[in-house]
Formats: sequence, structure tokens, C-alpha cells
Amino acid sequence: MSASITLRNRIAERGLIHVMAAHSPLSAILVEEAGFDGIWASGFELSALHGLPDMSFVSMSQHLDMLRAMAGRVSIPIVADIDTGYGNALNVTHAVREYERAGASAVVIEDKTFPKVTSLVAGGRQELVRTEEFQGKLEAAIATRGDPDFLVIARTEALIAGLGEEEALARAAAYEAAGADMILIHSKRKTPDEIESFARTWKGAVPLVIVPTSYPEMNEKRVRALNTIAMVIYGNHGLRAAVTAMRDTFRRIIADGGALNASRDIVSVEEIFRLQNMEAAKDSEKRFLR
Amino acid sequence: MSASITLRNRIAERGLIHVMAAHSPLSAILVEEAGFDGIWASGFELSALHGLPDMSFVSMSQHLDMLRAMAGRVSIPIVADIDTGYGNALNVTHAVREYERAGASAVVIEDKTFPKVTSLVAGGRQELVRTEEFQGKLEAAIATRGDPDFLVIARTEALIAGLGEEEALARAAAYEAAGADMILIHSKRKTPDEIESFARTWKGAVPLVIVPTSYPEMNEKRVRALNTIAMVIYGNHGLRAAVTAMRDTFRRIIADGGALNASRDIVSVEEIFRLQNMEAAKDSEKRFLR
Amino acid sequence: MSASITLRNRIAERGLIHVMAAHSPLSAILVEEAGFDGIWASGFELSALHGLPDMSFVSMSQHLDMLRAMAGRVSIPIVADIDTGYGNALNVTHAVREYERAGASAVVIEDKTFPKVTSLVAGGRQELVRTEEFQGKLEAAIATRGDPDFLVIARTEALIAGLGEEEALARAAAYEAAGADMILIHSKRKTPDEIESFARTWKGAVPLVIVPTSYPEMNEKRVRALNTIAMVIYGNHGLRAAVTAMRDTFRRIIADGGALNASRDIVSVEEIFRLQNMEAAKDSEKRFLR
Amino acid sequence: MSASITLRNRIAERGLIHVMAAHSPLSAILVEEAGFDGIWASGFELSALHGLPDMSFVSMSQHLDMLRAMAGRVSIPIVADIDTGYGNALNVTHAVREYERAGASAVVIEDKTFPKVTSLVAGGRQELVRTEEFQGKLEAAIATRGDPDFLVIARTEALIAGLGEEEALARAAAYEAAGADMILIHSKRKTPDEIESFARTWKGAVPLVIVPTSYPEMNEKRVRALNTIAMVIYGNHGLRAAVTAMRDTFRRIIADGGALNASRDIVSVEEIFRLQNMEAAKDSEKRFLR
Repeated sequence: MSASITLRNRIAERGLIHVMAAHSPLSAILVEEAGFDGIWASGFELSALHGLPDMSFVSMSQHLDMLRAMAGRVSIPIVADIDTGYGNALNVTHAVREYERAGASAVVIEDKTFPKVTSLVAGGRQELVRTEEFQGKLEAAIATRGDPDFLVIARTEALIAGLGEEEALARAAAYEAAGADMILIHSKRKTPDEIESFARTWKGAVPLVIVPTSYPEMNEKRVRALNTIAMVIYGNHGLRAAVTAMRDTFRRIIADGGALNASRDIVSVEEIFRLQNMEAAKDSEKRFLR
Repeated sequence: MSASITLRNRIAERGLIHVMAAHSPLSAILVEEAGFDGIWASGFELSALHGLPDMSFVSMSQHLDMLRAMAGRVSIPIVADIDTGYGNALNVTHAVREYERAGASAVVIEDKTFPKVTSLVAGGRQELVRTEEFQGKLEAAIATRGDPDFLVIARTEALIAGLGEEEALARAAAYEAAGADMILIHSKRKTPDEIESFARTWKGAVPLVIVPTSYPEMNEKRVRALNTIAMVIYGNHGLRAAVTAMRDTFRRIIADGGALNASRDIVSVEEIFRLQNMEAAKDSEKRFLR
Repeated sequence: MSASITLRNRIAERGLIHVMAAHSPLSAILVEEAGFDGIWASGFELSALHGLPDMSFVSMSQHLDMLRAMAGRVSIPIVADIDTGYGNALNVTHAVREYERAGASAVVIEDKTFPKVTSLVAGGRQELVRTEEFQGKLEAAIATRGDPDFLVIARTEALIAGLGEEEALARAAAYEAAGADMILIHSKRKTPDEIESFARTWKGAVPLVIVPTSYPEMNEKRVRALNTIAMVIYGNHGLRAAVTAMRDTFRRIIADGGALNASRDIVSVEEIFRLQNMEAAKDSEKRFLR
Repeated sequence: MSASITLRNRIAERGLIHVMAAHSPLSAILVEEAGFDGIWASGFELSALHGLPDMSFVSMSQHLDMLRAMAGRVSIPIVADIDTGYGNALNVTHAVREYERAGASAVVIEDKTFPKVTSLVAGGRQELVRTEEFQGKLEAAIATRGDPDFLVIARTEALIAGLGEEEALARAAAYEAAGADMILIHSKRKTPDEIESFARTWKGAVPLVIVPTSYPEMNEKRVRALNTIAMVIYGNHGLRAAVTAMRDTFRRIIADGGALNASRDIVSVEEIFRLQNMEAAKDSEKRFLR
């Protein structure tokens, strides 16, 4: 059974699945062990891991390498964040082919124009591509996937671009018509109201995906109450936790002039061995080293 | 001024420098911000980041890619862990050329045989290469470096291999004679006594390096008292801190059915933006985007 | 149907298959178009493409990247040259997992010790690993493959190491006993006699593979007459042809002070477009660009 | 002396330099040996090597890896083809930083919009970015380079986009005003007349660059007569020569059922050893292997 079917089945069985961002096989293993249903192969986290802004500085090759390494170490499905698809509909065909080969079970493509800019730049720049153009990109993705169960998820930034709920709903419907398997609706509000309103109004046949980073009070209970959201993506909590802990540990070691105290509050080296699958290596040594 | 000179100067000025392991540009930035003198581009941490045992599964290309990305984001010198040098003295020439090009200021080469095995495998396997053979590797490294200030650090595993202090001292002296700039003396004892004894007995002209992972009570004060150690490498504390925090955060989000509580104890998204150098990106937008 | 089954079926149907070395997707496409049965993902050609000696300077990552790119562009099976397996039996498990994921249908593992040295170095250095040790590596490969049709081919360098036919036959039999699907028997003689003698004497149940680079008079007719060889690998002819032509073309352009004459004797830019699959790109533009 | 100064000096001394495209360190070595003044790290050739259309399918990482490998093996300067700079002016800053680190002496940035489309797509699609927008990209490149001798070459596609000589000249002047070190003027005419007219009319202080692929009768004599062109780039002749020869050799081996005849017309394996710098490896073995 392919990981893509697994992903579809989980959504069907549970009604709602939880997907956590990872930026490395190690963080992906921890995501799986914690009990999440899938991995979000996040462009933002990978950019941050490189200490670079999330502006297409990290290349598709680098993202694929990381996704492939994760796919080699976890069993849960991987949802790939491919931004705008690295260009136009042709670049989408190339990307979908490569992400599927690398082990992804789904891609999320967004309707912004390439390249990204920060919110600093005023005016029309946070603009979206035309609806028909984005439909072409979705159709390109769908025609390219080898496995019909591989999910193509359309992400609309209409609310963030300030185009309003009506436009967001119209785009979501158009993307569903083009064949999208799910619609990711994104918001940057500090409260869930904008998303809740959209989710209540949505009448499409395909379910919604949300990324409640800026409105974390949007918990499972509230999500289930809406009845239209089937996937929650947690976008960057692992990375932020890692930064918090590394900073603290580094500062303590500097302050103490040694690692004695800092060592007490972090996992042991043996626990790292376990995550590296040292047990399997030892078994192989016993069986095959002569 | 090259980063290699910076590294040599810091050692000369301070007598003792502190070098922390990093497994990504992000962790390297945090190392620099905390005030460490250098980065340890650790093979162990990179293997763990890939969820793989530290047995040469991660390739030299992958290590170089990571080191290069770190060198693009930090100003402090990078000391590269190149294990046994990826083969014999010829492979060392190739490795030194590539690590220097990638932005390292120093390499550490160890005198174990390739490939690595776990301690499980009994007997003679944790064996070392002959002293003359390792001298050839050091001479190859020294003859290859383009910048004469680039440091070649010889790591002896004689104590770990159970060969005793006398052999460890003899090897260290032979490596110094071959041109090594520093000697890394490694121990797996749970207490510093083995290292302290070696450091007290060492009469060489070049200073020592230690990695006090298993004997963290070996703090700056005790190190300075010995007067022969010029570099302390902290081998894996950032990675262990990151694992600890990611695990905790992931578990809380699963338990809570949402990220509200977990979000309160981790750095903000804005802090990640800062580490990504978003400020520079915004400045560039203002200056160059039209 | 997996590419590995295709490879096994072709061998079964034709009795003898022809496999040509490639160093890029472009050369692989030309191999396929010429009518070969498979691609030899050659370590030697890839090293040469990098202008580096074939001494494990090119990493497994680089080899995998190239193989993966080839697998994305050709339909015929790919046989991967993995040298000694990048270390011991543990490294073999990692390598087999990765080569299978990258799209190889077979691996060839050789019984030399790592690292490689040139023939310049006298004495015992061109030595082989112990037979039992190599059996462990083969068993590791076989236990690791996910697809039971994925071929594990054992390459013995016994003749090249000067150990004689008897030792070569004994090793080949031991490797078959360990589960090898085929035996690659290598010779550096300038004539086929050594190989023909071995092939005539071989009584194993698994077929042989040869690489007749230094004895090119060993053609299909002579091979078929022996009745024990099922695969001929052409090791480096594409690369040598490319070097010959590039050199000639570069010299002519320099001599002429322009490309007019040189352009007449090389394929057109349109032919390169065809090999880049520009037709498919144009089709996609028509279907998906709006 | 940096490679960038070497490039500037050669242009100053010779008035006109010849730069040949390479797609690998091997082809770059042959370019250098033939006597060219520099290497063109061509996006088109690298895409073709991957069997992919030249539509930003090959990533910046892949291009950098290849350029870096070339820079490790040749001494002549490398001019990097960075297309539109991988996005907007911000992406240009990232690209210039990385190409300079990888060993390039110059970048060529073109004024087309991203992403590329084939000529099939009618109408306004082969359009250029606004002049001021492209000036911003050039200024971003210039502000980013670490070495002031690193060349930023502006390529205008105005003639190809059908905008006429006047617009081409206006853009060239605007790009010079923004700080471009040279102007690459491109044409797809089958004869040199369009380029010759532009070159005769050009009154700027910075010299021109041409890529006479489709009008190869534009030889050194005609170029020198114009007095404004300082660099000729040969865009894809090595790759086309390689394809021609590989195809022929592969077909002969299939037709002959063996490599005997084909082997006679291609360079020897020993010649490949020479290009791999096997001599240096043997020297290192003698000096360092014990």
C-alpha cells in the first residue's frame, strides 16, 4: 500500500488528521514517535534551518534531498510544501514528478506569484496569479502524478492578500473544479474567526486544510465542530522549540564554563543512538560482519 | 584576514577556546550568538540529523554542503570533523582541498581504521592504523592545505582503543613530529582522570584539544589548571537540547489537541525571522526592488 | 512491472544482454536510443566526468544523484557500480537501500579492500577481503533489498590480484553460495584468453558478467560460444568518445577563430532540444499554460 | 591574484577573449587545454546533460555544484550563466553571493521574466522585465559582490523579444548606468547582421559580449573589426560534439556486437587517466602512503 493511500485512508477514517512540520529526518522521527499522522516538509523550516529567509533561496534540490532523507526514516506520509511550484505550470510538472519520486504523498501548491516578497513591500505585490492560470497549474500537477492517490492540495492566499472571503471561496471552488483534492485556506489573523467563517461557508465536496500558527486557540475541538476541515498542519513548532532549547543550553555552557549542568536537562547520548537506529546497525554487525 | 588566522589568534590570545558542535547554519548562528569561539562541524550531529548511525553513512558531499552553508552564515571559525579522512592518505588530500574550499579553518583527522564499528564488535576491531601510516595522512593534509594557517589537528583514539597512556603519548608525539598543529586526545571514561593524567604528562610543543562529553565536570577551571589544553569541543549538546525540546513540544500538542500551550514556551515566529536575517532581506527589497 | 524484473526477463529471454556505461542522463538517453539493454552507472565514468581519479573521491551522494537523474529519463534498467560497497557490510546495507530507492535494478559489489590504490603501489596492496567477509557483504545486500528481483552481482578481482583461476573459481562459487545473482569476473589482460578459460571452467548455476574493455575482440559471437556469460558491460566508451569529439571541436574553433566549420560536423541545437524532451514541454505549455 | 582580476586583465590585454561552454569538470579541462580564455558555465548545457529542457528545471544548487567542481579543476576564469537571477533582486543577492563563493569570476544576468517559456507560446510571453526593475537587479548584484573585480554582465534579450535595436540600445545604456561591467547582446538571427549593426552603433563605455551560436560565420576577424566586442561565448559546441560522438560510438558497438572497431577511433583509457590527474594521485601515493 502506498503512503498516499495511507494518507487518504487516515483522512477518511479519522475525519481529521494532524500533520507536524519537520526540517530533518531526526525531527521527522520525533514527529512520528509523538503520534502525528503525517509530516509537513516545510519550506519555511528548511529555509530557517539554513539561516535564510523563506524566499526561494533554498532550492528545490535541497528540499528534495531533505524530503528523501526523511522518507527513508519514517513510515507516516509526507506532505510537501512546494510554494508556487517553482515557476509556471511546466515547472509544476517537473516538481510533482520529482516530489513523488522522492517519497512525498501530497503536495501543497499556492496561488501567489513568484518570487515571494515580505509584507514590507506595499501595494499589489502580495498578489495572486489569475484563477485560470492557477487552475492550469493544478491540472498540470494532476496530469503528472503517477499514483492517482497522490494528493494535490491547492492553497489559496486570497484572505492574506486582502481579497475577502467571497474571492477566497470562488477561488477554492475553481481549484476544486480543476481537480484539487483538498483546499488549504490560509489566514494571518491573530484569531480564528476569519478561518472559521470560511470553513462554515465552504460548500465544496473536498475538505479543507488549515495552518493555525497565528491563532493557536484553534484546537481539535473547534476544528471538528466546523465539519469541513480534514487536516491541521502545525507549521513550525518543532523548529521554534529546537531554537529555544539550543539557545538556552548554549548560554548555560558559556555561563558555567562547562557542560555539567546543561547536560542534566537534555536527553542522553544513548537516546540519540536510539534515534539513529543504532540497534539495527548492531544487529547487522552481528549478522554480516565477519 | 582568513578565518584560519582568526582561529590561531584566538587560541594565542585566550589560551583556551570553546568550540560548540553545530548541525545546521541555524544552530551555528546560535552558537555564535552565545559567544563560543568556533563551530565544530560534527559528523556525529550530522549523522543524527539524518537519523543515521555515525558510520560513514552520511557522505563527504553531504558534510561539505552543510559546512558550506554554515560558513555562509557565521563569522567564527569552523573546525571540521573529517573522521579518518574518508580513506587513505590520498583521500585525505582530496578531503582537505574540499574542506578548505568549503570554508573550514581546521580539520580533525583520527587514527582509527575505516570503516567504523560499534563497541559491540569485540576484539581487535576498534583498532588504529599504524603510526607511520597516520603520519603519512597528516603529511598529506599539511602538504595539501592552501593556507598555511589552516590547522591540521590529529586525533588519537589510543586511550579508547585500550592501548594505554604510553602509546597515546608516543602517538601524539609522532603526530606532532609529522606536523600536526594540535593533538585531540579522546577518552570515554566517565571521569576526567584519564584525560587529566595525559594532559599533565604531555610535553609536546603543540597544545591539546579535548571533547569532554562523558566527563562534563571537566570545566574551564580544571582545564586551565592543566595548562596544556587550548581547545574544548562540546560535541553534541545542541542536538541533544533540540531533541529534548522537540519531543516535549510534539507530545504537548498531541496531548492538548492543539498548539496553544506549546506555543507559549517556544520562541516566536518573529525570532525565527530574525535568525533568517529577514532584516537584510527587507533592506534589499527597499534598495533594489522596483 | 519493476525495472528489476525487466532486467531479469531480458537476461532470461535473450541469453545475453549488452549494458553500456553512462555518466549523465544525456548519455543514458543515447545508450537507450542505440538499443542497449541496460545502463552501467559507472563509478569510473562519473569520476572522470569530475576530472578526478577513480579513488572514492566522488561520494556515494554524488553517484546517487546522477543515477536518480538517469532513472528519471530512461526506461531501460540501470546496473549500479558500487565499488566495495563504501565500507564494510553495514555500509553495504545503507548503500543497497539507497541505490534501490534511487532507481537501480542491480548493484555490482567487488571484493577488493577499501580504499583503492593505483597499480603503482607494489606488493600486497591490491589485496582482496577474506572470502567469508565478502560473503557477509553479499548477504547484507541480499537481506536489505526490498524487491527480491533486485540483482546483487558479485565482482571478483581475484584474477587481477594475481591469485589465479583456481582462487577466482573458488571465490565465485563462495559468492554464489552466499546468494549472488551473477558473478562479474574481471581481467586486465590484453586478450580474452584468461576470461574465456574462466568462463569455460565455470560450473556454477548463476551466469557470468564481463567487462571487455582491454580485450575488445571479445565480441558477442565469442561470448555466446562460451554459454556461461549473460551480461557484457561496456565500461567507458561513451566517455572516451565524448572526450575525443570535444577535444577535436575545441581545437578547431580555436584554430579557425570561430565555430563555422566545427558546427557543420556536430548535431544541431534542435537535436539537443529533442534529447531534452522539448516536445513534451511544448505539449505541457499548450495544455496547462494560461 | 583572483580569477576575476585574471579575467579583467585578459580582456584588457587581448581586446577580445574566447569563452567556451562546459557542462562538467572534464569538458572544462578540455576547454582549458584547447586554449580558451575562460569557461562558460552554461545553464543550457547543464540542463541538456540532465536530459531536461532549459526551463529552470535544473536548480541553482545543481548548477553551483557543477561550477564548484569545475573551479576545483581548472585555472581559467569561469563565467556563470545565472539566467534571470532565480527570481527578483533579492534572489540575485543570494545567487551572486553563492556563485562568487563557488568560484565564478563573473555572472551573466538576463532581462527576461521568469519563468522561461518556449517560443511556441505566442504573444507577450517572451517579455522583458521593466528597465528600472532590471537596473535594481544589477545594482543588487554589484552591491553584493565581495570582490570588486567580480564582473556583473547584463544580458538583454530585447532583440530576441522583437523590441528593435533602439530599445536594445536604450536598455544597454541603462544597464551600463546601473553599473554593469559588460553588455551581452543576444540575437537569434541566422546571420550576424543584427548583432553587427548593434555593435557598430553601441557608444557605451563598457564592452559587448556575444554568443554567435546561430550565426557562426561571426568569426574573430569580423568581431575585431567592430571594435566594441570584448568577449565571444561559444554556447554549446562541446555538448553537441559529445552527443555526436557518443551516438556514433554506441551505434557502432550495437551494430558490431562488440567494441573492437569503436575502440580504435576514441581516446585510450590512459588518456582518461591523464585527464583525471592520475599522475598527481600516484605522486601522492609515493609521498604519503605507508
